[in-house]
Amino acid sequence: MNVSEAIRRRVSVEEFDPDATLSDAEIVALVEAACHAPSSFNIQHWRFVAVRSPEGKQRLREAAFGQRHVAEAAVTFIVLGDLQGTDALPEVMDLAVERGTLPAGKAAAWVRMAREIYADPQTARDEAMRSASLAAMVLMLVAEERGLASGAISGFDADRLRREFSISERYVPAMLLAVGPASSTRPARQPRLGVDRVLTFDDASGL
Amino acid sequence: MNVSEAIRRRVSVEEFDPDATLSDAEIVALVEAACHAPSSFNIQHWRFVAVRSPEGKQRLREAAFGQRHVAEAAVTFIVLGDLQGTDALPEVMDLAVERGTLPAGKAAAWVRMAREIYADPQTARDEAMRSASLAAMVLMLVAEERGLASGAISGFDADRLRREFSISERYVPAMLLAVGPASSTRPARQPRLGVDRVLTFDDASGL
Repeated sequence: MNVSEAIRRRVSVEEFDPDATLSDAEIVALVEAACHAPSSFNIQHWRFVAVRSPEGKQRLREAAFGQRHVAEAAVTFIVLGDLQGTDALPEVMDLAVERGTLPAGKAAAWVRMAREIYADPQTARDEAMRSASLAAMVLMLVAEERGLASGAISGFDADRLRREFSISERYVPAMLLAVGPASSTRPARQPRLGVDRVLTFDDASGL
Repeated sequence: MNVSEAIRRRVSVEEFDPDATLSDAEIVALVEAACHAPSSFNIQHWRFVAVRSPEGKQRLREAAFGQRHVAEAAVTFIVLGDLQGTDALPEVMDLAVERGTLPAGKAAAWVRMAREIYADPQTARDEAMRSASLAAMVLMLVAEERGLASGAISGFDADRLRREFSISERYVPAMLLAVGPASSTRPARQPRLGVDRVLTFDDASGL
């Protein structure tokens, strides 16, 4: 499926086939694709908890104010952003130097710069949300290509989610992402604002 | 170009053809595609300032700590998130009711719920970053399909950016996004962590 077709075809789905399942390999393939999203300093702040057990999905539904599709989709990902992403950066940089994609001096400079920038908590949170969202969007489009519907969900009780799924303070839940075969015809896309309402040229004063 | 190919081919580029330009129609087409990203309550928090004048790109480069590709790409978008996205929601909902994609009662309920949820400033900021990032990722992939390279940039002086491009406090700059024909062979992708490092099943305790 080509990119434009996937973009136009994908729509947020709430009606999933409750009997469908995805194999571990299918789930891994979705996440592997998602990890191709761009990442600040290659920190890769995204993390995924694939909730697919009936019991886990029930608990997830309860943490998502009862939204049915959270439990009915074959898998619902808890997409997390790492607030301490720079902790793993030396490891990432060692790999980059070893593979020859980054000179050692530049790798060391990136670690220093990244630590300085993301020492600010709001900046770290912004980046966690940004990286997690970029990866989630890739995941939704590759799911579409594989014939799977998706629905991103920002409505959930974050504290309850943390408790129920052992999410430490290190990670911020960015969204839930229900993925699986749809159960019925897809809903119509909600109408978008015209491009002239969201785009200006060279200056923001027209927004 | 199929989705998987675009995902795998796309890599963050810093070397753009400085002589290339994009027409208004090409820029509009990129943004129109980006607006197919999912959006909480269909608020569509994303906004785009397409900087393409040589003078504007020079000012943008200065606000981005001198990063050359900001000025050399055919266009660099300032991708913004709307912190007061619910202000435009009644208009969006009227359109949805008119088009029959949402019943009137549900539309009214969405406006109430969205206003309640996004009254919290951190929640509003999280959503602005999330929505802007989802749309930016779609834009990068559709650019790839159109033979255009992209580079997302989170390093910039936000205050200077605001001053130089008339960005009001209503909008949070989520990223810069350089788009255009690349000037040379693409860089190697920076190596990613293994999926086993970023994915767990049913519980986050393994992360």
